[in-house]
Amino acid sequence: MKALYFTGNRSFDLRPSVPQPPQPGEVQLKVAYCGVCGTDVHLYHGAMAGRLRLPQVIGHEVAGEITAVGSGATGWRVGDRVTVRPLQPGEEDPSDNGQTHIGKNLKFMGIDSPGGMQAYWNVPAHTLHRLPENLSLTLGALIEPLAVACHDVRLGELRAGEFVVVLGGGPIGLLIALVARQRGAHVLVSEINPARRQLAETLGLATVDPQEQDLAAHVATFTDGAMADVLFEVTGATAGVQAMTGLARVRGRIVLVAIHSEPKPVDLFRFFWRELRLIGARVYEPEDFEEAIALAAGGALPLASLITQISPLAEAPTVFETIDRNPAGMKYLLQC
Amino acid sequence: MKALYFTGNRSFDLRPSVPQPPQPGEVQLKVAYCGVCGTDVHLYHGAMAGRLRLPQVIGHEVAGEITAVGSGATGWRVGDRVTVRPLQPGEEDPSDNGQTHIGKNLKFMGIDSPGGMQAYWNVPAHTLHRLPENLSLTLGALIEPLAVACHDVRLGELRAGEFVVVLGGGPIGLLIALVARQRGAHVLVSEINPARRQLAETLGLATVDPQEQDLAAHVATFTDGAMADVLFEVTGATAGVQAMTGLARVRGRIVLVAIHSEPKPVDLFRFFWRELRLIGARVYEPEDFEEAIALAAGGALPLASLITQISPLAEAPTVFETIDRNPAGMKYLLQC
Repeated sequence: MKALYFTGNRSFDLRPSVPQPPQPGEVQLKVAYCGVCGTDVHLYHGAMAGRLRLPQVIGHEVAGEITAVGSGATGWRVGDRVTVRPLQPGEEDPSDNGQTHIGKNLKFMGIDSPGGMQAYWNVPAHTLHRLPENLSLTLGALIEPLAVACHDVRLGELRAGEFVVVLGGGPIGLLIALVARQRGAHVLVSEINPARRQLAETLGLATVDPQEQDLAAHVATFTDGAMADVLFEVTGATAGVQAMTGLARVRGRIVLVAIHSEPKPVDLFRFFWRELRLIGARVYEPEDFEEAIALAAGGALPLASLITQISPLAEAPTVFETIDRNPAGMKYLLQC
Repeated sequence: MKALYFTGNRSFDLRPSVPQPPQPGEVQLKVAYCGVCGTDVHLYHGAMAGRLRLPQVIGHEVAGEITAVGSGATGWRVGDRVTVRPLQPGEEDPSDNGQTHIGKNLKFMGIDSPGGMQAYWNVPAHTLHRLPENLSLTLGALIEPLAVACHDVRLGELRAGEFVVVLGGGPIGLLIALVARQRGAHVLVSEINPARRQLAETLGLATVDPQEQDLAAHVATFTDGAMADVLFEVTGATAGVQAMTGLARVRGRIVLVAIHSEPKPVDLFRFFWRELRLIGARVYEPEDFEEAIALAAGGALPLASLITQISPLAEAPTVFETIDRNPAGMKYLLQC
């Protein structure tokens, strides 16, 4: 029973995971699997260092079983299989507009407080979502990123029959593509990495290499001249921002999923000229988790194909190194 | 009876306006007043030269009376008082998404075809909107820019009680502010020009000089910390683009009204972090004209205060020079 402590400088320390009795309103989880998120890799690289308290357990894509229930955590029992929506709303700010999932004083579990890369993890009961019996705990560890995708697609107000272009075919991009296809959209994934394109193709998704082809011309052909109803910018790259405005039809919606840490030049004239919409989308709300669980349990999405590797928690240092070296990889899970 | 021909190089030529019999589907207008739009000033400065056929009559903010009715222009009679929605949709493109008011092959009257700065102007009957008897023809010439404001406010999905910040207090900015206030919003106008701020204040609008005050702090005070529900970017300036993302509350809507001819750096992180929306808005649809006419005829908006000067058409060259020299001016009308 181990806990993985990030110690800074791309280093980890494995220590015993000592189960703690849950506080009021909490449950104690025995974590089965914790996925490695792009955010975890950013932390590993030194990002957001001011928010961590080293040494700290990170990780927030979790599935597990309840092993103890604190007072007041009503509705939960030992043995319940759950995933965690790792958001702890803080005091509400007037500018939050009632959106507690992205409020000013929000804390993100696994960054602002200890995370899930450990055998035993105490979490507030309000963060739990129940996993149905027919959903494996490996797929349960994909619910959090799948909920991101559900949130993005929901905010894009996607309707069946619409043309969708996903810019960036990493884990979130492919999950968005799969959710959009499930909703009845015609989906094209733009991705420069050939291994990621190949995986997308094996999932039955149309792909394009924007470095080899004229992306706007390709989208025009794919959509019979209509261009995209909804775009998802998931690259985080300047090239994605440059491309997005030229791919949307009149009143097309561009959902901004990626983190762009620096201001980037945007073709605002095109927003005006074609009445485009840009829609920022961050994390998720409870209904996105419920939808993600229903989609995963329904079995219509080829989620297992996105799992590149499942490794024991003790091998996490090697896993993080592998992710850095292997841009073809998709989703890595740690068995906790 | 004159027609004002723009001959390029900031020059005009006055020639006789010879009434022409209307073609099928057209009416012949006797133009009473034609407003000078910022677009006309851009044309005067040499912009969009490739779309003009010099010498050309420009202008598109018109009120007048029908003097002849072509065959098939049913529903219209000589003597009807009207304004013109100066859009001629072309062949529909698949990427237009059914939005004919901004379609790929749209022609704008007064740029792509002769405009209204002449005594007699033939226009397609489908562009007409009837002016009620109680609405003067001077105010009738303000309906077109007021319809722009109605369109912008409608696309911003403004609700009563919301906080609005208008960046840029020129004619369109002030019309947006007045429409938003009429809809029950709390409105703040940010404008660097003291004369424009003073005019806004006389209209009862709150103003701020963004070069003298910390705009974000001022908006925070104005909104009791809530920040803006809806922003209108009407400056066309880099400073407006830099400011806008810091003034919106979570899920705030930023309506992009101004023309930004070059890509500008946008804080995309803020769009992501606070789930902001950017909404491009261009010209108008028929319902915006109907709303503008109802608002103007209802008398609740102080529209007459926006008219800086009414001049005979023959003085148009001087008027264009005056506009260049007098940034405090608001709306100039030409009596045709």
